[in-house]
Amino acid sequence: MRSSRSVLSEDEVLQRIQQIARDLKAGSGLRLSIGDDAAAFRPSARHLTLISTDALVENVHFDLRYFSPADLGWKALAVNLSDIAAMGGRPLYATTSIAFPRGLTARFVEDFYKGLASLAKQHGVVLIGGDTCSSQRDIFVDVTVIGEIEPAKIVTRSGARPGDLLYVTGALGGSAMGLEWLTRSSTNAWGALAKRRKSSLVQRHLRPEPRCAAGRFLADRRLPSAMIDVSDGLSTDLGHLCQQSQVGAIVDAKRIPLPKSSSLSIPQLHDWLGYALNGGEDYELLFAVPSRRRKKVPRAIQGLPIHEIGFFTSRPGTWLVQGDQQTEFFPSGFDHFRESSNPDR
Amino acid sequence: MRSSRSVLSEDEVLQRIQQIARDLKAGSGLRLSIGDDAAAFRPSARHLTLISTDALVENVHFDLRYFSPADLGWKALAVNLSDIAAMGGRPLYATTSIAFPRGLTARFVEDFYKGLASLAKQHGVVLIGGDTCSSQRDIFVDVTVIGEIEPAKIVTRSGARPGDLLYVTGALGGSAMGLEWLTRSSTNAWGALAKRRKSSLVQRHLRPEPRCAAGRFLADRRLPSAMIDVSDGLSTDLGHLCQQSQVGAIVDAKRIPLPKSSSLSIPQLHDWLGYALNGGEDYELLFAVPSRRRKKVPRAIQGLPIHEIGFFTSRPGTWLVQGDQQTEFFPSGFDHFRESSNPDR
Repeated sequence: MRSSRSVLSEDEVLQRIQQIARDLKAGSGLRLSIGDDAAAFRPSARHLTLISTDALVENVHFDLRYFSPADLGWKALAVNLSDIAAMGGRPLYATTSIAFPRGLTARFVEDFYKGLASLAKQHGVVLIGGDTCSSQRDIFVDVTVIGEIEPAKIVTRSGARPGDLLYVTGALGGSAMGLEWLTRSSTNAWGALAKRRKSSLVQRHLRPEPRCAAGRFLADRRLPSAMIDVSDGLSTDLGHLCQQSQVGAIVDAKRIPLPKSSSLSIPQLHDWLGYALNGGEDYELLFAVPSRRRKKVPRAIQGLPIHEIGFFTSRPGTWLVQGDQQTEFFPSGFDHFRESSNPDR
Repeated sequence: MRSSRSVLSEDEVLQRIQQIARDLKAGSGLRLSIGDDAAAFRPSARHLTLISTDALVENVHFDLRYFSPADLGWKALAVNLSDIAAMGGRPLYATTSIAFPRGLTARFVEDFYKGLASLAKQHGVVLIGGDTCSSQRDIFVDVTVIGEIEPAKIVTRSGARPGDLLYVTGALGGSAMGLEWLTRSSTNAWGALAKRRKSSLVQRHLRPEPRCAAGRFLADRRLPSAMIDVSDGLSTDLGHLCQQSQVGAIVDAKRIPLPKSSSLSIPQLHDWLGYALNGGEDYELLFAVPSRRRKKVPRAIQGLPIHEIGFFTSRPGTWLVQGDQQTEFFPSGFDHFRESSNPDR
């Protein structure tokens, strides 16, 4: 992807980004966008402002053998929209910082921003600024999303209480399965890769769908007592919820929603529970609801299934029920500074 | 600096950052800080919100032979505060994304955040979130600063008019001279480096002082018709001002303020005009003032000198007057995607 060189100046890069950003319709609050020292907007006085920042680093978070530049742009925004969704918030603006080696083509940068803009458009998010610079070797992308939420509706990680029920949107494990299928490929021929890229599991990994609509739906009805997005895996993110709420949780293994069974017929991917618990990058919402409000939790939100998978307890720790066995499980998702205890990663 | 290894888990890194961030006193608007999916604050209804993002990449923006981790933390915040200053704004909050190789010590990360926090404290800025992850090789730092400004006081790059006078704060060229002195050092012995690190020129490079107070002073009095911070060098940043204001400018070479003459006695650094025009990273404020308001521009703001160095014209281009010669000059600061035309860089 880095073969055909077309060297850009910074101003040319900026102009292309501005062109792509202009296609995103800005609300009336935007006063100043890309091209000045800072962006400026008029915040809503009735809302809290939300800020989330997440970075993607080449060969840590993504591999350009699998990711197209447009996938990368999409995902860099998606992981941040997911954080806003987990607060119950509405995303409004994004800034992007991207550092890439000088040899990268103009096409790469444009495609990156087009991928980002296509997701931004779906969520009504406007690209208002950022920084574009060179790096020695690896690509580094950092996106900041600014959102808003009514003060009474904000959902944190710390409100779960013993007896609250545990829910998750969509299905878990698909993203890690998709990555595994890509990396364990017996052939690296582009044809085989191109075919695999189209599978729903692989798309879950390359282009996760942030659950903004579900997060808003839940927050509007003030159903969750606590919420987090599943970025590091159920074991790690449920651990965060429990730690910050000072509770424990019991999860029923057979209730954990998995990707469609057709995907599971791929023989390499038999450890579905391992992927669901520790795989990460599903960007589903994991949330607590007081049991008295159980009946108000729908089975699906705009077609996205909602599953009750367990409940919170006063006993600390996270526990998995399988048949008549109950075993404690521990955060085993990806840790950037330790070898992961997930053997598949 | 990467020798003594002390491997951290992500949670441990997060806890250390939270501890440092807690020492920064938060205003009443902060609702939720580091540790949830997003930070949340209540914006002021009477202000515009300002957002600025700038990244620093190892071996592009900084070299760990010269930068201590605390210098790096300081500078990563300083370059963003400078952008808020150039709008006339008041900085409030910051988020940081840092990616670094696994082998880095716990001490490095702590010192980075301590350096950042020491500057944050000076400016009343609160660290409210971010992302800490691993990289394959180089360190990447991206900081986003959130600020505010009264709508009537915002200063953009596009308001300069023919006849407006051109001003700059402080002195130009010092940062590039400091870098040059570090890199051209005939000895790499730490003793010699440590001594040089203390010089004011080198400090200008390692720990630039963002001109927030001057920016506020000017905006409060609504003196500037346009403003920008000098991050890429006078030639490049004056070019941006002119381009966005659709004007030209004439600069009087002998009026360009230089670092104190004692610094200039270093024999390698004789091309003072080259450094001042193209060196960059001085983070001074460059601004236009309508000539009728000339008398209101003070000679100094809180001890920081203000110099009138030229004026704007309807003739496009940027021109340098030396004696009775007038020559056009062009953006020659650092361009991330082209070999710089500044031979010293």
